[in-house]
Amino acid sequence: MTGVEGSGPSAGSDAPDAGPRDLTPLFAPRSVAVVGASGDLTKWGGDVSARLLQGEHRRAVYLVNGRGGEVLGRPAYVSLRDLPQGPELVILAMPAKLLETVVDDCVAVGVKAVVAVTAMLGEMGAEGKAREQAAVARLRAAGALLVGPNCLGVADTTSELLAVAYLDVLPGAVGLISQSGGFGEELNLRMAEYHLGFSRFVAIGNQADVDTPEVLRSFVGHARTRAVVVYAEELRDGRAFARAAHALVCSGTPVVLAAPGRSAASARVARTHTGSLTSDSVAVDAACRAAGVLRVDTQREAMETLVALLAGGRPRGRRVAVISDGGGSGAICADVLARAGLEVPAFSLATQQRLREALVENAGCANPVDFAAATYDTGAYERVVDMVGGCGEVDAIVASGVIGFWGARFPDQTDMVEKERVSLLRMAALARDRGYTLLANTPQSCAVVDDLRAGGLPLYRDVESAAAALARLVAAAEPPLGVPDLPPPAAPVAEEGYWEARRALSDAGVPLVAARRARTTDEALAAAGELGYPVALKAAGLLHKSDAGGVVLGLADAEALLVAVDGLRERLGTGARDLALERMAPLAEGVELILGCRWDERFGPLLTLGFGGLFTELLADTRTALAPVDEETAERILLELRGAPLLRGVRGRPPLDVGAAAAAAAALSRFAAAHPEVAAVEVNPLLVLAQGAVGLDARLVLTASGSA
Amino acid sequence: MTGVEGSGPSAGSDAPDAGPRDLTPLFAPRSVAVVGASGDLTKWGGDVSARLLQGEHRRAVYLVNGRGGEVLGRPAYVSLRDLPQGPELVILAMPAKLLETVVDDCVAVGVKAVVAVTAMLGEMGAEGKAREQAAVARLRAAGALLVGPNCLGVADTTSELLAVAYLDVLPGAVGLISQSGGFGEELNLRMAEYHLGFSRFVAIGNQADVDTPEVLRSFVGHARTRAVVVYAEELRDGRAFARAAHALVCSGTPVVLAAPGRSAASARVARTHTGSLTSDSVAVDAACRAAGVLRVDTQREAMETLVALLAGGRPRGRRVAVISDGGGSGAICADVLARAGLEVPAFSLATQQRLREALVENAGCANPVDFAAATYDTGAYERVVDMVGGCGEVDAIVASGVIGFWGARFPDQTDMVEKERVSLLRMAALARDRGYTLLANTPQSCAVVDDLRAGGLPLYRDVESAAAALARLVAAAEPPLGVPDLPPPAAPVAEEGYWEARRALSDAGVPLVAARRARTTDEALAAAGELGYPVALKAAGLLHKSDAGGVVLGLADAEALLVAVDGLRERLGTGARDLALERMAPLAEGVELILGCRWDERFGPLLTLGFGGLFTELLADTRTALAPVDEETAERILLELRGAPLLRGVRGRPPLDVGAAAAAAAALSRFAAAHPEVAAVEVNPLLVLAQGAVGLDARLVLTASGSA
Repeated sequence: MTGVEGSGPSAGSDAPDAGPRDLTPLFAPRSVAVVGASGDLTKWGGDVSARLLQGEHRRAVYLVNGRGGEVLGRPAYVSLRDLPQGPELVILAMPAKLLETVVDDCVAVGVKAVVAVTAMLGEMGAEGKAREQAAVARLRAAGALLVGPNCLGVADTTSELLAVAYLDVLPGAVGLISQSGGFGEELNLRMAEYHLGFSRFVAIGNQADVDTPEVLRSFVGHARTRAVVVYAEELRDGRAFARAAHALVCSGTPVVLAAPGRSAASARVARTHTGSLTSDSVAVDAACRAAGVLRVDTQREAMETLVALLAGGRPRGRRVAVISDGGGSGAICADVLARAGLEVPAFSLATQQRLREALVENAGCANPVDFAAATYDTGAYERVVDMVGGCGEVDAIVASGVIGFWGARFPDQTDMVEKERVSLLRMAALARDRGYTLLANTPQSCAVVDDLRAGGLPLYRDVESAAAALARLVAAAEPPLGVPDLPPPAAPVAEEGYWEARRALSDAGVPLVAARRARTTDEALAAAGELGYPVALKAAGLLHKSDAGGVVLGLADAEALLVAVDGLRERLGTGARDLALERMAPLAEGVELILGCRWDERFGPLLTLGFGGLFTELLADTRTALAPVDEETAERILLELRGAPLLRGVRGRPPLDVGAAAAAAAALSRFAAAHPEVAAVEVNPLLVLAQGAVGLDARLVLTASGSA
Repeated sequence: MTGVEGSGPSAGSDAPDAGPRDLTPLFAPRSVAVVGASGDLTKWGGDVSARLLQGEHRRAVYLVNGRGGEVLGRPAYVSLRDLPQGPELVILAMPAKLLETVVDDCVAVGVKAVVAVTAMLGEMGAEGKAREQAAVARLRAAGALLVGPNCLGVADTTSELLAVAYLDVLPGAVGLISQSGGFGEELNLRMAEYHLGFSRFVAIGNQADVDTPEVLRSFVGHARTRAVVVYAEELRDGRAFARAAHALVCSGTPVVLAAPGRSAASARVARTHTGSLTSDSVAVDAACRAAGVLRVDTQREAMETLVALLAGGRPRGRRVAVISDGGGSGAICADVLARAGLEVPAFSLATQQRLREALVENAGCANPVDFAAATYDTGAYERVVDMVGGCGEVDAIVASGVIGFWGARFPDQTDMVEKERVSLLRMAALARDRGYTLLANTPQSCAVVDDLRAGGLPLYRDVESAAAALARLVAAAEPPLGVPDLPPPAAPVAEEGYWEARRALSDAGVPLVAARRARTTDEALAAAGELGYPVALKAAGLLHKSDAGGVVLGLADAEALLVAVDGLRERLGTGARDLALERMAPLAEGVELILGCRWDERFGPLLTLGFGGLFTELLADTRTALAPVDEETAERILLELRGAPLLRGVRGRPPLDVGAAAAAAAALSRFAAAHPEVAAVEVNPLLVLAQGAVGLDARLVLTASGSA
């Protein structure tokens, strides 16, 4: 939808000509049929039929079974063609071998949408895959869309369409798109404890037709949906995902993504599970950062994030007040918040004084607030939330410990239990009304805990959940980097040698150290003379010069150069035929960065920048972003590196020219984005100095070359 | 108990003369009395009385209340002196102002142990503290011990002594020592889900007499106790804790420690909560490493660790098989395991083939094993655990996903539910019998899940818990470093200047770069001539020479030296009076480490070693250990640094002389351990070269000097 596309590997399925499709027949069909309906409720065709019949008051539900007769007390039709009307939506739960016949029937009766619950032909080798693709193409040509195959089904709780096998999809405000039925199932179970559920539940399966970006786009403007969660093993068109998610986030609906693939083992299982190659995890992170998507790793993290997002708090910063009925849980909570990157600042003396007046003598008032043994005091939480919420010294509050002391411990003391209940509910209401971000955790289960959850308070079991959820709320409040458009492709680069790489990057505006080419000893001496000593000498023909011993630095004079040239020839033989003489850079005065761009099959051009040189792997301090980036974004990324203090100047060193490094990164990223034929391009190191930045090496690999 | 003690701040309360005390009167008294007994069960004196009466068949229980009459259907005695016999144990729940009177009574009737539940005088200012200390001293002199004050009480479930206020302490195999009653309470609640409980529960309170090390020692040889968990905001005598914990670990009983204090905020709350300064978190980590204690940060982490420890598995390595009923949970589990530092290796082709034959066609068999939609197959988990447990390719198994498919989904299908139940219980028994380490997680609650937990399978709710617990089991299998004895104190160092530091360290065997002292320009020139150019010039009188601009490196000749001396004098004035000329070290050929020792008030001498120089803070790659360490231990620590590859040689660089660095570290640590008057001593950088290591700077700070 945005900018110029169709250039290179990441060209999306949402190319302008595709046009948006209407998904209403999928989510709110006027009529629905199950092919493969059964009376055995342990079978998919039985379970889905029974669930769809729950929506019979909203739409006609037809059951199709080749044997005819009666199923679940309804007439079973032998074929879709026998129905009194062509259904808008058809659920396929019959054996895969019948695919072509049923698709014929669908097209014949004008079906608008198909959900293929069962695994189909695509998992039965190449011939099956071809048959499946042909069937999908037929449906598309007839204007019908298909979800699946190999999915648990689809539900829309607003329209009471319940076609997810074996699952009581609970109604609520979360939209789900999942490549794993089990993920949605577990989330459904976990969210139930918080009285939350789904607006739409889409087990997306193999995405033979309808894919994740298409469903994401359908959530823009969907009033019932207040947050969307995606489980994806493969984001086939990562840029399209990022664009769709970014549009959704910008429309005010947060997006949470669970995408395994951080380890080799999870990639292995995904290959078998959904036949997909998991997306490169670094690329997924870059896409999330660009789109403002919150990435999680587990079902539990997804749950805790959704609970917090739906509660509605959006803290403006990282400062947290901790409130607790005991010192132990307060201290633990403070440590866990710090571990999650949040701050628990000491209150001003004025706020401490106010708290001291409101609490028992041995209470802790500095932050964390510790009521001490005063949980007998049923109004303590309410009073303290009121005070610290309004003090202006924190952005959020975490209440951690025993919440519902009387209810859990003395259920018989009904007066006190009720007094406590009323006060705690008032606390939650107060936080909501005044816009305080309040999260809580307690290990107990008692009535008031459930009441508070039902009322929308993110009241977790574990302090870890409260801290992690709050950290994600803070991240969600940061503006996304945005999903950049790709520039039109430039005239392709034809060669990938060192000199070609230098020329291409220089032309693109990346500053490189002065260099001269030499083939003979005389040429080398002449070049060094021109540049001025000291010089560096390189075997320019090698891709990984340093690792191969093809670089000699700091040659002080002609004599040293001659020795070095001889040495290089001795070590590398023909590898030392093409020599580069370069002006020696003042290494000790700067810091070495790495700048690199590569084209990812799914996400397009990606820029990586961070610390380079000897410490590259050890510091592992790099960030990756969707390319191209502008200077401002590059600078923002550089200053977010853990090692940013090195750039700002430490230990009496001067601040370095981050602007120049950012400009080089932006130039490199623009070049890469305009050159889909360049698989990878790298400047490592880029030496940042107090004034300016200069690339000391360059590398470029073409897509088809195989020389990487 | 071990080695020479009594020297310096860490001299323990377990000094040889103290001798071990018998804690039997505390845990299994023949008679017990409550002072401050009450009929109101919401009051401490009421609740504790009622709980103690549950053990009336095991011992006489006397209730004391100044008003006399009857309490809870028993006669209330006005004073301890009125009892038919002097009780072995007394629980104090009366107002603090009565302390002296009641202590008089205790001594008079020969009480052996006292548990002071309520907060007492120590929290009422200096005078109160003095009164409390006097009371404790009186009890000690009379041969009685005291737990608390300000604690929730003590329980021993074997002797049915239940004196923990408001808490149904569940019986089990965990010993607890906690400075926070709430921590024990939450753990009790969390462990109940796993059918686990406590052998002894000691809310240790303010530790006015009995402290954590003393109770730890009492667990050695306590048959009912199979693991011990400690919550400590302050380890007042950290070495004594480490020694006691190490002895317990070596006796076969693992120890888990929750010790907040990683953040400034948790330290703040602890100060109010228990009046304690939290222990330095780095020192706590060092003590844990020495003693083989597993450190956790939260109640949940403590629970998940204890559950796994009591299950008994002790994996010999990090290789894990993942088993799952669905690809999604398998992929997520693999990523979470990798995040926890564990490995999920692909199975050999032979094992994959065996699995393939045992499972449905579209199952994943490479590891993770994904049964696919085959949860209908009630025996799948059992069969796969059997196969992968015996294949010799992994050290542990994690089953992750839907466990109890029929039980949770089709409870009416009683035949299948029972078949599944029997198979899952057989799976757990099989793993236990054959010594496979098996952990599991499932989001469901159903009967078989509870059965499996009751049978001892560590079956968590969250995959995070399974991974974290397994990682801690692996850590628990590593041998502890050991708690080193302190050498006898050497003749004290009297001065802390640069030259004194160099001399002391040289004498101790720490290699330092050749240096000459100079006060005049002529002396400087002569010194440089002796050493040979290039030299380094330093303002030796400054403690932080680099930061103050007091170091000039790489002076090539006399001319450069003269300029540098003038510059130093101009910049630093009198600060440049004391000059050091040093032979220039080949910085580019080595790597800079930092070695430092400091005396911690609670833990004694601590050695820190890791990467130094410019990257010290950024890499934050240092480890701290209890000093002294020997060469072997120092080498082990160095090779565990994240940056260890730099020492082993990367990017074509030669391996460095780790042995020489380790020897320097060991020497430094021995020196520091023999010099309690040295608050801190540091060599930074220590340059490690391919041959040897050399200290390029030295710093020493005396305890009382205040010049740090």
